[in-house]
Amino acid sequence: MKIGVVGASGYAGGELLRLLAFHPHFEVTAITAHSNAGELITSVHPQLQSYVGKKFSAFAPNDFASCDLIFLALPHGESAKVIAQLPTTSKIVDLGADYRLESADQWSKYYGGGYAGSWTYGLADIEPFKSQISQSTKVANPGCYATSIALGAAPAASIADLSDLVVVAASGTTGAGRSAKISLIASEVAGSLTSYKFGGVHQHTPEIEQTLTKISGTQAKISFTPILAPMPRGILSTITAKLAKKVTTEEAHSLYVKYFADSQFVTVLPIGVMPKTAALTGSNYVQIQVAVDDHTSRLVISVAIDNLGKGAAAQAIQNANLMCGLDEAAGLRFDGLGV
Amino acid sequence: MKIGVVGASGYAGGELLRLLAFHPHFEVTAITAHSNAGELITSVHPQLQSYVGKKFSAFAPNDFASCDLIFLALPHGESAKVIAQLPTTSKIVDLGADYRLESADQWSKYYGGGYAGSWTYGLADIEPFKSQISQSTKVANPGCYATSIALGAAPAASIADLSDLVVVAASGTTGAGRSAKISLIASEVAGSLTSYKFGGVHQHTPEIEQTLTKISGTQAKISFTPILAPMPRGILSTITAKLAKKVTTEEAHSLYVKYFADSQFVTVLPIGVMPKTAALTGSNYVQIQVAVDDHTSRLVISVAIDNLGKGAAAQAIQNANLMCGLDEAAGLRFDGLGV
Amino acid sequence: MKIGVVGASGYAGGELLRLLAFHPHFEVTAITAHSNAGELITSVHPQLQSYVGKKFSAFAPNDFASCDLIFLALPHGESAKVIAQLPTTSKIVDLGADYRLESADQWSKYYGGGYAGSWTYGLADIEPFKSQISQSTKVANPGCYATSIALGAAPAASIADLSDLVVVAASGTTGAGRSAKISLIASEVAGSLTSYKFGGVHQHTPEIEQTLTKISGTQAKISFTPILAPMPRGILSTITAKLAKKVTTEEAHSLYVKYFADSQFVTVLPIGVMPKTAALTGSNYVQIQVAVDDHTSRLVISVAIDNLGKGAAAQAIQNANLMCGLDEAAGLRFDGLGV
Amino acid sequence: MKIGVVGASGYAGGELLRLLAFHPHFEVTAITAHSNAGELITSVHPQLQSYVGKKFSAFAPNDFASCDLIFLALPHGESAKVIAQLPTTSKIVDLGADYRLESADQWSKYYGGGYAGSWTYGLADIEPFKSQISQSTKVANPGCYATSIALGAAPAASIADLSDLVVVAASGTTGAGRSAKISLIASEVAGSLTSYKFGGVHQHTPEIEQTLTKISGTQAKISFTPILAPMPRGILSTITAKLAKKVTTEEAHSLYVKYFADSQFVTVLPIGVMPKTAALTGSNYVQIQVAVDDHTSRLVISVAIDNLGKGAAAQAIQNANLMCGLDEAAGLRFDGLGV
Repeated sequence: MKIGVVGASGYAGGELLRLLAFHPHFEVTAITAHSNAGELITSVHPQLQSYVGKKFSAFAPNDFASCDLIFLALPHGESAKVIAQLPTTSKIVDLGADYRLESADQWSKYYGGGYAGSWTYGLADIEPFKSQISQSTKVANPGCYATSIALGAAPAASIADLSDLVVVAASGTTGAGRSAKISLIASEVAGSLTSYKFGGVHQHTPEIEQTLTKISGTQAKISFTPILAPMPRGILSTITAKLAKKVTTEEAHSLYVKYFADSQFVTVLPIGVMPKTAALTGSNYVQIQVAVDDHTSRLVISVAIDNLGKGAAAQAIQNANLMCGLDEAAGLRFDGLGV
Repeated sequence: MKIGVVGASGYAGGELLRLLAFHPHFEVTAITAHSNAGELITSVHPQLQSYVGKKFSAFAPNDFASCDLIFLALPHGESAKVIAQLPTTSKIVDLGADYRLESADQWSKYYGGGYAGSWTYGLADIEPFKSQISQSTKVANPGCYATSIALGAAPAASIADLSDLVVVAASGTTGAGRSAKISLIASEVAGSLTSYKFGGVHQHTPEIEQTLTKISGTQAKISFTPILAPMPRGILSTITAKLAKKVTTEEAHSLYVKYFADSQFVTVLPIGVMPKTAALTGSNYVQIQVAVDDHTSRLVISVAIDNLGKGAAAQAIQNANLMCGLDEAAGLRFDGLGV
Repeated sequence: MKIGVVGASGYAGGELLRLLAFHPHFEVTAITAHSNAGELITSVHPQLQSYVGKKFSAFAPNDFASCDLIFLALPHGESAKVIAQLPTTSKIVDLGADYRLESADQWSKYYGGGYAGSWTYGLADIEPFKSQISQSTKVANPGCYATSIALGAAPAASIADLSDLVVVAASGTTGAGRSAKISLIASEVAGSLTSYKFGGVHQHTPEIEQTLTKISGTQAKISFTPILAPMPRGILSTITAKLAKKVTTEEAHSLYVKYFADSQFVTVLPIGVMPKTAALTGSNYVQIQVAVDDHTSRLVISVAIDNLGKGAAAQAIQNANLMCGLDEAAGLRFDGLGV
Repeated sequence: MKIGVVGASGYAGGELLRLLAFHPHFEVTAITAHSNAGELITSVHPQLQSYVGKKFSAFAPNDFASCDLIFLALPHGESAKVIAQLPTTSKIVDLGADYRLESADQWSKYYGGGYAGSWTYGLADIEPFKSQISQSTKVANPGCYATSIALGAAPAASIADLSDLVVVAASGTTGAGRSAKISLIASEVAGSLTSYKFGGVHQHTPEIEQTLTKISGTQAKISFTPILAPMPRGILSTITAKLAKKVTTEEAHSLYVKYFADSQFVTVLPIGVMPKTAALTGSNYVQIQVAVDDHTSRLVISVAIDNLGKGAAAQAIQNANLMCGLDEAAGLRFDGLGV
C-alpha cells in the first residue's frame, strides 16, 4: 500500500518514517515538510539511513493522489487546510490535535482558532475505539499524555472516582517539538526538572476527560500537571483517584490484567514491578502498574510509554493497520530499546 | 567552633564537608566514615580540594569530645548507637530519620527496628520549628522529600483540605545514596523515569503528615508517589489539594508570599514562573509556585529543592547555625548552580 | 534456523535477544544466563516484551544440540569452557574477546590467563574479513571500540601513517557492562566525563593493531585513550594520523566513500556533516567523516557507532547471517533511533 | 571595590554574577545586558537569588565610571566598541577572545573582522602570565578549551615534542552559549556525542599554540578536535605528544607535580586517579593526570575543568584579584560540586 506523510520534519514525523521503513505492507511514496522542502531527509533526521538520498517535498496534492493512506504530522490548526486539498475519500490519520475533541467549546478554550470537527478517536488498544477505528477512514491519533493517562485510568472506572482524578506526568523533551527555543536547549534542561502549563491548563485535559467520560459513562474530571524531564523520550504518568469501593491491590491488579487481556501492546506488569520509560523507547508498548494505597483509600497507577512511539507514530501506524484491515501489529512487533 | 561529622562518605556527608569548608564560624575537626576509615577523603569525594591529604577516621568518641556540634549522616537506625558514646550535652544535628517521628507506631510501620524517640524537628524556615530549634541541643534534620512537601503544603492549611493531599515528587539519584546497586547504575537510570516505593509506602509519609498536622491543627493525610529521575540532584514536588474555600491564583500566591516573607531561603516565584531544580543545585534555597485550577477546584503547588542542599546538608547547617546562636544564613549565602 | 544465546543477561545479550526477535530466519530456542538462571528474562531486560513469560536457563549442553548457530556473550576467559561442551561442528559467534587475538603474547599482556587461540575475525563490513566469515563456522566478534576505530582507520592505509595513530574514543556506560559498581552508578556518571585505562593500556589496543596491520601490510601502532561518557549507548572515536602524502579533504573523502561503496552499513557522511552517536542507536550502522587538517598535515577521522548494536549484537548477527549464507542484512535493516 | 559586568545575560556572565556575590572584596554595582536590558536578572538566571529584584541595564558608560574593575563577557568582536566608551585607565578583564591573540594574521584567519590588538594573557596559574597579570590593567581571559589544554601541555615542554600535539577535548553544552539553535536543543544533544569545527579549524588553536610557544621557546603546533558532550558543564581534554626523551610515568608525574607546586588551583592527581569533570563543577580548580604510554612512546595527559568556572568566570576573578593586588584566591576557595 502507498503511504504519504505530511509534515515529516518534526520528531513525530521522523519516527513515523523510521517505523514505516520496517512495515511489511506499507511503502512511503510521498514525504513533505513545509519549511524543509528540498532538503535531504537525513539532513534533519540523520538516523534515517533507509531514506538516504531522498528529499522532503513541498506539499503538492497530486503527490498524494495515489496514496492509500496519509499521515498528517502538523502543528495544531494546520490539518484542515491540507485535508481540503486531498480527495474526500482519502484514508487519513491525523497525529495533530485538530480532530480529537467533540466539543467546539473545549477546542476554543484550550486551543483557540476555528474548530475543525471531530473524527474517530484513535486510542487503538481499547474499546469502543478499536472497533470504530476499523470502520473509519479518518482517525484522530491521540495526544501523547492523553494516551498514557487514558489507558492508565480507563480500567479504574468500575472501582474509582474518575470525577476527581489527579495526574502528574513527566515527558521527555521531544514532546516539546523540534523547536529552537532557549527553554529547550540542553544547557537549560540537562539535570533539571520543571513543570509547565501549570494550574490545570494543559490542552490534553479535555481530550482525556472526553475519553474517560465515554468509557465510564459519567463525567470524568482531571487535575493534570505536566513536567519536562531531562531525557529525550518517554512519558511517565502517575494517576490517582479515590477508591469508589474497597478493593485490594491484588483485586485492582487482576482487574487491570483482565481489562487489557486482549491488547497486544498494553502490559500490566507483575505486582511490584514498576513501569520504566526506557523499556518502551521506540516501541508501541505500554507498561502499567497499579496499587491500592490503604492509608488514603486511593488507587495509584503508573504508566510508561514512549511519547514518540505509542504516544505518536507507533499508535498512528496501529490505527492505519486497523483502518486498512491489516493485523494491528503489522510493522510494530519490536521491543523497546531498554537502555 | 569545632565541628564533627560522623558518616561523611555518603553523598549527604560529602555535601556537608563541602559546605562546611565555606563556613565562617565552623571548623571541621573530626571526620569519620565506617567503611572508608583510613582512606583519603578525596578518594571518595574527589571534588573536596579543601580536604586534600585528610583521611576519614574510624569513629572514636574522644575525637568528638571537644566538638561544639556534631552532624550525624548515618543510615537510619544507626544514630542511637553513636549518640550513646557521645556526651549527653553534645549539640547534635542528625541527618538520618531516627529522631524525626513522634510516634513509635509510625516508626515501627515505616522503618521497623527499635524506636529511638523524637527530637526537635529541624524544618528551619518555618514556625513553630525555627523557634524550637534555637532552643534545642538536639535536632532531627528533615528528610529531603519531607522538606519540599511540607514547605509547599504548609501555607495552604488555611485554604485547602490537607486531609487528602496528593503528591508526586521526583528525585535525582543521589537521593538513593552512594550504593552499588544495579538499579542505580547509569545505564539503567539514564534517559528513564520510573516510580518506586509505590502505593503509599514511602517512609517520609508519616513525617510529612506529622509536620502538616502540627501546623494546621487538623490531621493531614498524604498520598505520596516518589519517582527516580535521570539527574544527580534535585527534587521537584507537585502537590495538590481540594480548595476548602474559593480563592483565586492571585490570592493564593499572595498568601504564599506572606507566609514566607520572613524566610531568607524560601522564594515564592512571580506568578507564571516555575521552579526548576537546577536553579537550586548546591544551595539552601527553595523555589515555590502555586496556582488555583478552577476546573477542578484544586490548589496546585510546585516546589523545587536540591535534595543534598536544602534537602540534607544545607538545612542541617542552617539548623546548626540556629542552635549555636549564629545568623541562620551563615555559610549558606550562595546561589544555586543554575546550569 | 535455531539459535542459542549463552550469557544473555548482560547488555550485549539483551540487545542480541531484542534484535533476534525481529530476525526473519532465526528463532531463539535456548537462552542461558548463569547467575540469573530461573529468572524471567523480563526481570532483567524489561523491554523484551517479545520474551514475556520466558526464563533464563542454566547452561545445559543438550539445550544447544539442535541449534544451527550459537552466540556467546560471556565475560572474557569464559568462552572456552562452554565451547568444550558443544559439538565441534557448531557454528559459533563469540561476542567476547577470547578468540580475537592471533598472538598469545598479546593475549597474555592485555588479558592474562590461558590463551584460547584465534578464530576468523568478524569485522563484517570489510575485506578480507567478510569473505573469510562467509567460509567460517567460528567467528570472533570484534570489540566495540575496535570496530569503530578499525573501520575508521582502515581506508587511511594508503594515505596516512598508521604506525602512529592517535585515538581518543568515548563510550556510553553500557560498554562497562551491567555491573553493580560505585563508579558506574548514575550519581557518579551523570553530567561528567572521565578517562579510564589511561596511558595506552586498553585491551582493544592489540586487536585494533592486528586488524590494521593485516589491512595495511605494515605494522600499525595506536595510542588509544578511552573515556566514559554520560550516556547509556554510543561510541564516538576520533582518530588522527600524519598524512603520508599530500591529499585534500575532498580526495580523502572520496577515498573513504569508495572504500565503503559496497558496505550496506558504513556511511561516509557528506563533507561537513558530522557523525552523531544517537543517530546509530539500536542499529548496525556506522557513520564516518574525514577531513584533512592542513595546519598539522594530519588526517582526522570521526566515527560513531552504537556500542551495543554495531559494536556488539548487531554485528554479531551480521556475522551469523554471513556464516549461514543469508543476506548479511537480514534482520538488520532498521534505522537508528535518532533521538 | 566596585565591579561592573558588561554582557551578563550569557552563561559566563551568569556565572560571574554568581561567583561575585560571594567575593569578600568585590561589590557588583553595574550589570548590563544588551538584549535583556530592563529584565529581571532572575528571569534569565533563575539561580541568582542574591540578585532578586535587580535588573539588567542597557550599557551606559557613566554607570561604569566609578567601577574599580570591569568584566566584559561579550561575543567576540564586540569588546572594542564598549572599551572605546570607558576611561582608558579602567581595569578590564575581557572574557571574550578579542585581545588574546598577538598575531593579526591569526585573528584574521580564525575569527575575521578587525583586529583589536593584544592584552596580557590571563592564564593565571602559571608563569610568565601570573606575574604579568599582576602588573596589568587590561587582561584577556583565556578561552575554556585553551585553558585546559595549555595547562595540561605546559609542563611537558621539557620532555615531549610540542610541535605535534594531538588533542581531543569534549565540552558541555554551555560552551556553545545560551543560544536558541536546533543543534543545541536537549532532544538533539541528550545521550549523544558529536564532533564540530572538525579538521583543525577551532578558533582556540592559535591561542593554545601562542601560549605553548611562549612557554617552550619553540613553535608549538596542535591538532585539535572538539566534541559536544551531553552534559551542561565541564571540559575533559586528552592531550598526547611524542616523548622527546625517555621518561617513566613516575618521572613525568613528578615533573607535573613540581610544575604546579605553587598553584593553588591546579591539582595533579595521585598516579592512577583520573580527572572527572563533575569534581570541578562551579569551581576554579583544575585536575590533571599524566602517563607515559611505553607502547607508543607518547605522553598522555588528561585535564578536567569547568568550562564556566576555571574556563571563564572563575579564572576571570582570579585575574581580577591579581590585578587588584588581592589574594588570587579571594572569593574562589570553594570546592567543585562533585555530584
